[in-house]
Amino acid sequence: MVTLEEVKNAFKPKLKPIEWRGDSLLLLDQSQLPFQKTWIELRDPEGVSSAIRNMQVRGAPAIGISASYGMVLSVNGSSLNEALDSMKRAKIVLDSARPTAVNLSWATSRMLNLANNAVEQGDVKNVKELRDLMEEEANQVFQEEYEAELKMGLYGLEKLNSGDAVLTQCNAGGLATGTGLGTALAPMKLAHALGMDISVFAPETRPWLQGSRLTVYELMEDGIKTTLITDTAVGLVMYKGMIQSVMVGADRILRDGHVYNKIGTFKEAVIAHEMGIPFYALAPTSTFDLKSEEKDVKIEERDPNEVRFLRGVPIAPAEVQVYNPVFDVTPPKYVTGIITENGIIYPPFEKNVRKIVQR
Amino acid sequence: MVTLEEVKNAFKPKLKPIEWRGDSLLLLDQSQLPFQKTWIELRDPEGVSSAIRNMQVRGAPAIGISASYGMVLSVNGSSLNEALDSMKRAKIVLDSARPTAVNLSWATSRMLNLANNAVEQGDVKNVKELRDLMEEEANQVFQEEYEAELKMGLYGLEKLNSGDAVLTQCNAGGLATGTGLGTALAPMKLAHALGMDISVFAPETRPWLQGSRLTVYELMEDGIKTTLITDTAVGLVMYKGMIQSVMVGADRILRDGHVYNKIGTFKEAVIAHEMGIPFYALAPTSTFDLKSEEKDVKIEERDPNEVRFLRGVPIAPAEVQVYNPVFDVTPPKYVTGIITENGIIYPPFEKNVRKIVQR
Repeated sequence: MVTLEEVKNAFKPKLKPIEWRGDSLLLLDQSQLPFQKTWIELRDPEGVSSAIRNMQVRGAPAIGISASYGMVLSVNGSSLNEALDSMKRAKIVLDSARPTAVNLSWATSRMLNLANNAVEQGDVKNVKELRDLMEEEANQVFQEEYEAELKMGLYGLEKLNSGDAVLTQCNAGGLATGTGLGTALAPMKLAHALGMDISVFAPETRPWLQGSRLTVYELMEDGIKTTLITDTAVGLVMYKGMIQSVMVGADRILRDGHVYNKIGTFKEAVIAHEMGIPFYALAPTSTFDLKSEEKDVKIEERDPNEVRFLRGVPIAPAEVQVYNPVFDVTPPKYVTGIITENGIIYPPFEKNVRKIVQR
Repeated sequence: MVTLEEVKNAFKPKLKPIEWRGDSLLLLDQSQLPFQKTWIELRDPEGVSSAIRNMQVRGAPAIGISASYGMVLSVNGSSLNEALDSMKRAKIVLDSARPTAVNLSWATSRMLNLANNAVEQGDVKNVKELRDLMEEEANQVFQEEYEAELKMGLYGLEKLNSGDAVLTQCNAGGLATGTGLGTALAPMKLAHALGMDISVFAPETRPWLQGSRLTVYELMEDGIKTTLITDTAVGLVMYKGMIQSVMVGADRILRDGHVYNKIGTFKEAVIAHEMGIPFYALAPTSTFDLKSEEKDVKIEERDPNEVRFLRGVPIAPAEVQVYNPVFDVTPPKYVTGIITENGIIYPPFEKNVRKIVQR
């Protein structure tokens, strides 16, 4: 049995996509990868919101971390009340950037609640102290995320054997989380760092190509054997026995086990189910939305031009009607297990989620 | 009940992607659509083979028709024996262009067998007469294809109701067959021509984007309401109840009902099966391969750069390993019915294929 200390020593993140500079937030622009490494520096919550909206930073945990620092950047004003008002406005601006990612409002609520409590309790005496507290909290969000990923990776390792090929979807790696490790990719990264023979199949994940642009780039940086496939080939590789396990991230998980993740995840889950291949969603417990039911969750639709054009090049008739949902929902029937930092949740989820996700 | 005469009068093909000129074959270059309408003129079987290989003409029936005319272009020499030798060489050149499409070798064998018989029986006296006979036969291949599509369309119509949305895959339309009607798209085209309210969801179909480039273009030309989706969204649209029927083409169908078609078809079939949506493959009986078993059929893999680049633009790290199969196989379990020009074949296919496909 591998321990947390052992994997901490074996694995060192190569990518640092989110960097806090004290008075600004530095983000590796993921919309340009892997063709250009551009860093953007943000000094206010509006800038962070716009970076989230434009997918310069993407992935639920990375959005949560960035939004936390966005809240730090909003602590301004000549009084604590002014600073709190500024934070409230910032929360609205940030929350509206990506409606489906639950980590976003989770992070902004955490920051704002702490601020409200600290002011109410008299724990902070001025705006400077409030800002310091918020900065500490945002760093804590980041650190908790990394620790959670190490633990998820450890639980996921139990499900891997040397020689396995794992199918993923989108990018639920260290770019998506901002830490350089990741959620769905954590088990493979730790396995590789420990000397196991593990390979990954990455579907390109249209329309935004997170698979071909980000997952492939990130895994190659880590030296992990990676094969790129089209989204259309996902079925054949499972049918042909080339895949031993499916591991994906999640943007929102309901208490009954419905998993919201990047568009295309559902089809992998259904096919894996039919082919007898285990399907795991990996996500920190912050991803759970214990209040909503399926009917409450709105699935984000994005600009039709993401489908009509690719990197500026037209690939369809300009006037064609497009339906461009960017998440889908996988019902619990198709989910073998949900791997969190607190352990693996198996069906029946309605009963077992509560044992692992305390809130 | 609609009759063949009625649909013949109601529907007139708008596209004429294959045109025979007597001493050359004119093909609408599908690799450039919908951005450029370029016609290529071919004067020998090598040229036809290369157009098939480069996917300037694609789709099983269109390949069969083009190959038939390619065989006409090969009838050369100073004696009947020389002409037959030339045809034999042409058959090898043509058959090697796309190994998975059974219509290709079906068409070249049909042409060569007729030529051999005609020479043996003394039905043709010289090369000119042999060539005339071959030309007549190639025209016959074309005409039979169009008649077969009208009949498939009529059988498919029985499965459609006004208001239905149909999911397809790739392009099994009039571009794929060369006739302007198509196989999988024939029911929707006839339905629309008869005034029914029918819409189509077209997945873009990476890597070659036959969906976004060809199906969407072709259906819009015919005035049919069409929605383009990414390949990743195929699951969600079925899950959300937006699709009443799946209709796809086929490149090869085995006697036990295994359907070979464009990569991505299998996933549609599995999800449709899970969601209780009927899944139909539409193909002329010439698509049936009654001799092979699943283990005998090689699935074509194409150039990794089709996945690394899109219309010349890099979309993945240049050095990434790629697996690029371009067909997949759908086992009979997931096939509701196979719609041919002779009727609809239902399971058990092992028993029922023989009733419809006489050979």
